[in-house]
Amino acid sequence: MNLRYVIREFGLVLIVLSLCMVAVMGWAARNWAGGDVDERLAVLGLVMSAVVGAVAGLVCWLFGSRSGQDYLGRREALLLVAMSWLLGAALAGLPYYTWAWIEQTALIDHPFASMSACYFEAMSGLTTTGATVLDDVDSIPKGLLLWRAMTHWLGGLGIVVLFVAVLPTLGVGGKKLFQVEAPGPQQQGVRPRIRETARVLWLIYLTMTGAQVLLLRLVGRMSWFDSVCHTFATLATGGFSTHNASIGAYDRWSVELITILFMVLAGVNFGLYYQLARRRFGAIWRDPELRVYLGILFVATLIVGFSIYGKSSTLMTGEQRVVGLAEAARQSTFQVVSIQTTTGFSTADFDLWGFVPRAVLVTLMFVGASAGSTGGGIKVIRILVALKVMLAEVERVFRPSVVRTTRVGSGVVDPEMRQAVLVYVLGIIGLFLLGTLALMLIEPGGSLDFTSAATASAASLNNIGPGLGLVGASHNYGFFTAPSKMVLSLLMVLGRLEVYAVLVLILPGFWRSD
Amino acid sequence: MNLRYVIREFGLVLIVLSLCMVAVMGWAARNWAGGDVDERLAVLGLVMSAVVGAVAGLVCWLFGSRSGQDYLGRREALLLVAMSWLLGAALAGLPYYTWAWIEQTALIDHPFASMSACYFEAMSGLTTTGATVLDDVDSIPKGLLLWRAMTHWLGGLGIVVLFVAVLPTLGVGGKKLFQVEAPGPQQQGVRPRIRETARVLWLIYLTMTGAQVLLLRLVGRMSWFDSVCHTFATLATGGFSTHNASIGAYDRWSVELITILFMVLAGVNFGLYYQLARRRFGAIWRDPELRVYLGILFVATLIVGFSIYGKSSTLMTGEQRVVGLAEAARQSTFQVVSIQTTTGFSTADFDLWGFVPRAVLVTLMFVGASAGSTGGGIKVIRILVALKVMLAEVERVFRPSVVRTTRVGSGVVDPEMRQAVLVYVLGIIGLFLLGTLALMLIEPGGSLDFTSAATASAASLNNIGPGLGLVGASHNYGFFTAPSKMVLSLLMVLGRLEVYAVLVLILPGFWRSD
Repeated sequence: MNLRYVIREFGLVLIVLSLCMVAVMGWAARNWAGGDVDERLAVLGLVMSAVVGAVAGLVCWLFGSRSGQDYLGRREALLLVAMSWLLGAALAGLPYYTWAWIEQTALIDHPFASMSACYFEAMSGLTTTGATVLDDVDSIPKGLLLWRAMTHWLGGLGIVVLFVAVLPTLGVGGKKLFQVEAPGPQQQGVRPRIRETARVLWLIYLTMTGAQVLLLRLVGRMSWFDSVCHTFATLATGGFSTHNASIGAYDRWSVELITILFMVLAGVNFGLYYQLARRRFGAIWRDPELRVYLGILFVATLIVGFSIYGKSSTLMTGEQRVVGLAEAARQSTFQVVSIQTTTGFSTADFDLWGFVPRAVLVTLMFVGASAGSTGGGIKVIRILVALKVMLAEVERVFRPSVVRTTRVGSGVVDPEMRQAVLVYVLGIIGLFLLGTLALMLIEPGGSLDFTSAATASAASLNNIGPGLGLVGASHNYGFFTAPSKMVLSLLMVLGRLEVYAVLVLILPGFWRSD
Repeated sequence: MNLRYVIREFGLVLIVLSLCMVAVMGWAARNWAGGDVDERLAVLGLVMSAVVGAVAGLVCWLFGSRSGQDYLGRREALLLVAMSWLLGAALAGLPYYTWAWIEQTALIDHPFASMSACYFEAMSGLTTTGATVLDDVDSIPKGLLLWRAMTHWLGGLGIVVLFVAVLPTLGVGGKKLFQVEAPGPQQQGVRPRIRETARVLWLIYLTMTGAQVLLLRLVGRMSWFDSVCHTFATLATGGFSTHNASIGAYDRWSVELITILFMVLAGVNFGLYYQLARRRFGAIWRDPELRVYLGILFVATLIVGFSIYGKSSTLMTGEQRVVGLAEAARQSTFQVVSIQTTTGFSTADFDLWGFVPRAVLVTLMFVGASAGSTGGGIKVIRILVALKVMLAEVERVFRPSVVRTTRVGSGVVDPEMRQAVLVYVLGIIGLFLLGTLALMLIEPGGSLDFTSAATASAASLNNIGPGLGLVGASHNYGFFTAPSKMVLSLLMVLGRLEVYAVLVLILPGFWRSD
């Protein structure tokens, strides 16, 4: 383990985060003289945090520079990734905390007055979960809201680069299946190849960002500020909004359709956009995960739409509306896409829907989006492989001698990969149950019902955001005790980094130098 | 597929069931003159059912005898097994139904007046689940109670013979791991080998039955009738009692200790008793599943005992008792053993315990007893293998090149077996969720809460009996609608036959003659 090298690169991560804070601060300070006090205090919070981050980053960088070696191996990459999220969230939460700290007298009961809540909010941002501790988002200074959206955007970009460019190149965890094609010339070394792929992904991400901002501003008639914040939250499949009523605050078809479109796009494997940029349309057309992903979205929308049709639905604004045909299609499409892509925006309070639509949504939480997307969950391709393997296993009982290969599209899934997928699905179920159990044990006096605990665990682990019951679309995570917030933060990062990058840290073998 | 041969053997199964009914009837009719009317009607019900069964069995036998061939292959065995439970339960439920039918006027609201309830009760018996539709067990004629216990005993014997003698010999489903050693000389053909092993198992089962009956009668001071019924229910890890308050009706240390001892013994792989009979003590001492099985029982008892200590507990008799140290040990040992061995007897109403003990018990429902025992659940050995494979998978992320073998005890688990175990665990979780969903959808107007639905599904699938909430220890399954009773019956047989024997029936490939 080349620890110094990891610390050097981690220093870079901190410096990048600080620079992003400076950028947000620059925007927030544009009308310093005329702005209200709260906005100015947010600017101060951002400045102080940026300074702390930059200093810490430089120290790490200087300490690590003496390593001399320039080697990025599997262990180094895993440790760097785990540190970036686990410790990066501490820095990303600092602006919230310093803002509340400066405001001391006015905000004695504010959620951001607690360190664990700020860490939770930052982790929720960087893991693109979108669960919030805030009961009144509208009252938060715009500088902090933009930073909050920015954490989503950075987290989403980081995940795509990590799972499409870095980990497959390093051959970590048998990711072959989830890789559309090894991008970049194969003769290069590890670092240049990663850099080249990351550059293309970054351009794609930036292009999509620009497109959605313009559409929301020009077609959706949002303000520039709201357009940027919601675009950041959409493309990262995050879910932080600038309004208490989430996307429901607009109640506009145009806004919802644009958001649905980009949520769906953000849930696609970014390797496919790479192929698109190279005009390899065949690879996209033949991709089995894309078909199944869109198929599940379609079927789930039909079931949910049928279930809510003709009944009364409560919108996020509190308005009651009888659900006609158009309204059923509108609400079900939005909510199904939002949950399956693990974004977590809401237009209707789906916690008040019937049993069937809620069961469908909870199922979708676990299915999740595509591998190599910014979305979370188990991922469509794993569900597909697991189901195929299970079906083959039933057949093997009466035909034990027939050798069968599992195919997904044109690719063959080797036994090692089959095992990895099954273990992953079981692992997610196990972590979900452990998380639920931990929450119920930690929260005092059995105040937490099972549905709330289970969906809080599921929504955190799968990076969705809202759950059911006490963590439903019209509620927030602020009421959890500090230890529970830490458990939920851990679930978020476990889900976001696909478990292993975090779990290896507790294995003694990982730290041994063999 | 040699269908005629399967039908002939199934005819034998029906004839054996009918003969058992005749035996029970003979006992129930011993004081025909002096007995009450209800007992006599039960005898009539048994006679009529035995006649129906014998006729149907003979027809099958004669039809099948013309097949000429005498071949028992994998498919034939699987089909025979599935038919024996699915259709055998229909015959086994007939005495209940005919009794209620003869009693017509008096029993218009009796649970047994419904065909689906009788099928449920019989399936619960044959699968050694022990879930009942009866709200008042004490009022049922003794003839029927003995038949009810007899279905347990037959089902338990059938399962042990099936999983220790038949399926491993046929090489079905990679059962190698669960087999202590291929018993019987290897040179023999398939049928003689199965017959030899089955003979030994039957002797072991009979010996244990005799031992427990005597102990319950002489030390536990139960009546002969109760001793026999409870022994049948214990050794099969069934759970039907002759009293509403289950084993709690006696409130005697001796009865509880004897029951605990034989529940634990019934949850051990019967292949080990085979080794014991051959004086191979080493095989028993080294058996990894036995150690882990006893270890889990011990740890779970400690946790549950600690959790209920010092609080108030409601016994099955309705009596409230403050739980001292001895009482905590007594209640926790009994309930943990009863649930993990999937028997389902109760002495205390554990549904009224706190969250921790209930969570432990629900977890144990899924863990279950040992493979090759009469107990249900996923089985300890599978849990052990799944956990080892999952741990190895985490390590593989940063050490992908190291080839690792999974060991359980001195045996190596090959990759095929690893996959089979992972698929099985996932399959059980999937069936549990589907069962829960089906129950919640079928029961009218959302009358079923999630806890009751989930634990009814879990307790049926894992062959336990009581769950929590509406199906808690002091409740019964009578309130379910007929379709739900069919779903629960299906879950029981799926769990009992370890899923595949039932699932293959819906695969077209199973019926094709290739």
